[in-house]
Amino acid sequence: MKLRLLIAFLFVALSLQAQEEIAPTMKKIYQTALLDGQSYPWLAHLSNQIGGRLSGSLNAQRAVEWGKEELDALGLDRVWLQPVMVPKWIRGTFEYANIETSPGNTINVPICALGGSIATPLAGIRAEVVEVQDFEELKALGEDKVKGKIVFYNRPMQADLVNTFSAYSGCVNQRFSGAEEAARLGAVGVIVRSMNLRLDDYPHTGSMSYGNLPLRQRIPAAAISTNGAELLSSMLALNPALKFYLKQNCKNLPDVESFNVIGEIKGSTHPDEIMVVGGHLDSWDLGDGSHDDGAGVVQSMEVLRILKKIGYRPKRTLRVVLYMNEENGQRGAAKYTEVAKRKKEKHVFALESDAGGFSPRGFSIDTTPEKLKQIQAWAPYFEPYLIHLFVKGGSGADVALLKTEDNVLAGLRPDSQRYFDFHHAANDTFDAINKRELELGAATMTAMVYLMDYFKL
Amino acid sequence: MKLRLLIAFLFVALSLQAQEEIAPTMKKIYQTALLDGQSYPWLAHLSNQIGGRLSGSLNAQRAVEWGKEELDALGLDRVWLQPVMVPKWIRGTFEYANIETSPGNTINVPICALGGSIATPLAGIRAEVVEVQDFEELKALGEDKVKGKIVFYNRPMQADLVNTFSAYSGCVNQRFSGAEEAARLGAVGVIVRSMNLRLDDYPHTGSMSYGNLPLRQRIPAAAISTNGAELLSSMLALNPALKFYLKQNCKNLPDVESFNVIGEIKGSTHPDEIMVVGGHLDSWDLGDGSHDDGAGVVQSMEVLRILKKIGYRPKRTLRVVLYMNEENGQRGAAKYTEVAKRKKEKHVFALESDAGGFSPRGFSIDTTPEKLKQIQAWAPYFEPYLIHLFVKGGSGADVALLKTEDNVLAGLRPDSQRYFDFHHAANDTFDAINKRELELGAATMTAMVYLMDYFKL
Repeated sequence: MKLRLLIAFLFVALSLQAQEEIAPTMKKIYQTALLDGQSYPWLAHLSNQIGGRLSGSLNAQRAVEWGKEELDALGLDRVWLQPVMVPKWIRGTFEYANIETSPGNTINVPICALGGSIATPLAGIRAEVVEVQDFEELKALGEDKVKGKIVFYNRPMQADLVNTFSAYSGCVNQRFSGAEEAARLGAVGVIVRSMNLRLDDYPHTGSMSYGNLPLRQRIPAAAISTNGAELLSSMLALNPALKFYLKQNCKNLPDVESFNVIGEIKGSTHPDEIMVVGGHLDSWDLGDGSHDDGAGVVQSMEVLRILKKIGYRPKRTLRVVLYMNEENGQRGAAKYTEVAKRKKEKHVFALESDAGGFSPRGFSIDTTPEKLKQIQAWAPYFEPYLIHLFVKGGSGADVALLKTEDNVLAGLRPDSQRYFDFHHAANDTFDAINKRELELGAATMTAMVYLMDYFKL
Repeated sequence: MKLRLLIAFLFVALSLQAQEEIAPTMKKIYQTALLDGQSYPWLAHLSNQIGGRLSGSLNAQRAVEWGKEELDALGLDRVWLQPVMVPKWIRGTFEYANIETSPGNTINVPICALGGSIATPLAGIRAEVVEVQDFEELKALGEDKVKGKIVFYNRPMQADLVNTFSAYSGCVNQRFSGAEEAARLGAVGVIVRSMNLRLDDYPHTGSMSYGNLPLRQRIPAAAISTNGAELLSSMLALNPALKFYLKQNCKNLPDVESFNVIGEIKGSTHPDEIMVVGGHLDSWDLGDGSHDDGAGVVQSMEVLRILKKIGYRPKRTLRVVLYMNEENGQRGAAKYTEVAKRKKEKHVFALESDAGGFSPRGFSIDTTPEKLKQIQAWAPYFEPYLIHLFVKGGSGADVALLKTEDNVLAGLRPDSQRYFDFHHAANDTFDAINKRELELGAATMTAMVYLMDYFKL
């Protein structure tokens, strides 16, 4: 009985101590991010001085060097570059499309090549258009009605889904596999409605794949802006025999070497247990990649800077990983995971920010039901910062590869309403970032890392 | 015992019925707002075709007429205009300021007159500047050091407060009473740092008052942009004797007649119990008032439209009130409340949207502790829509006047991070509105009205 009393007493004492320590530390974290933050000036440099940084480009290399330099300046225990071969695709020097509504009458429409697409012949392609909503409709049409035509995938993102990432998931197969499916039925090209919930004039690029289609069967693929898609669809209703003209000279080149950028603070008591925070350093080439994923890069760097600044030394080893090539290959994440496995590193926690620099709402968490419950019990600590979301779900494309039976993977979940207005498009630029929202995201990630380190799950 | 069993059985049955009814109705509400919403086109008209609508202006009258016309078109049971006398202040034809850093060298800075301020003499005023952080510092300086000078209030909004409205509350006395306090010590003019958390070039106007200061003692007051305030402060550090030049010809005119616009659906079973949703129809004159409070106006109108559209007839009487003159007098709210009291109307619930058209987070609720708890128990219904905030707090400037001992007042609480980037400034325009965020706010208000009507608190 005495022992049980002692244990109970110790528990109460610990929990009081925890309460006394945690709330003030959380406050310091948020204050540091909001009053003395580095994420915004960092992102200003990455976006405005470097810009779009597609894997294999000169800008991607400049971003790698910048990332290393900034992490070096933080005085971490170790900073290194992890080599990885990445695909290299270039947009080329032109991309252009028009709708020929009647012979000689054309209307230009905004398009952009999808990442990984082949070029059209130099003179472009000009063909009739088959509009479909999905692969089922395409297959029902069959080779007869598809052969020699341009397939136009026009399924819109579902506007009544509050989580816009669910709306994205419901459409993205058109972009990723649309060319492959259409080519199998003899189509000569593919036009895909941009993954955008708003009606505007920006075409949104993104990765696509030809699967195991032989080279000679591959066909060019481009995204059309949502306004362009609406126009094309309404024109087709008037004249199903109209012609669409598409011309682009993008190109796939051999793989080149690039790098993940990694920085580390050694754990004070459990150096072999590793916690990762990360975002991806590469971006698409149309905008400057401020939301996707410059925000995640600088927020992840900021986690380590804030913890150092407030004098918190993590018990476990804390790593920031700026992943290369998330957008079109995920080679950086594969390499990081491969090396970690080879070295038998134990990753107990990994947190990714790759959903935009908007006002943070919480986390999507991938772990055991028991650990999820433990994390959800921390919600009161986050309440003063208006962080309410602690849901079971996916983490992020890069850190997901680190999954084990019982570790914790998580993704920061910012408000998603505006994200697909900018995602992969020319307007994903620094002016679309709100300083406070970016900083609150960095603070929220830092707080989660701190709590994960404080409580041993 | 049998009776208690019967009651328990009925309760379970009711609660099952409730669950079966409520979730699908909530879904219909959100779907209607997101797939078939009217708030965005309404706001496009109010913002782009009418524009800024300061009380007593021609535009305010156009907004009244537009509001009545649109409510008439909804086929409500009753739509009417409620006359109210409102103050009329005009900005005049010029406002201008510069810093004279040394004789003959001037730098223009962006300023705007505060609403209600008097003009400067036609030739402007030119005087030395006393920079203070607050009234305490001003009073400590005393008449000796203030007399004949321009007082520059430069206390910034506190950036580490996550709720930006708290940061606003901590500063707004500079704007509202700064001229009165400075005039009592013999100052000749007042410059106030804009209530903006961002550093930019927009001066933010807003209401001010001279209190009971005699006419001859009143001094002109203007807001300076945050960048301008930083510049002025740094220049003063270099040269405390620099001169500031201010010129404006704004003017207070006699009160004029205007209107609250009111529409009503009669309650099916409790017509004498009234629920109000509302926002304010007037705005400041610099921008087009899209966030403040065009958003609240169209969201409130949308509540009635959505409920009609989905075929829900409220048991209680539901009114939309488009209040006139929230910004500089609150005469509309006073008039509505006065008439309601005279008619002995029973207002059981009132919900205001006046915090911007951003992504909704929840509600701030002013009621008894018991009713607050009952409302908080509805949180699970809102979870699928990412609405998490049900906190005790103020409702809104207009509906707050309807408070009784036990009714429920509430304010929609959108994400507040960006609000003060636009509030009362020339950039509060339609392009700063995100369609989905606006629509989600309207749906969230509709859902709350529906639940308030469904459950009898």
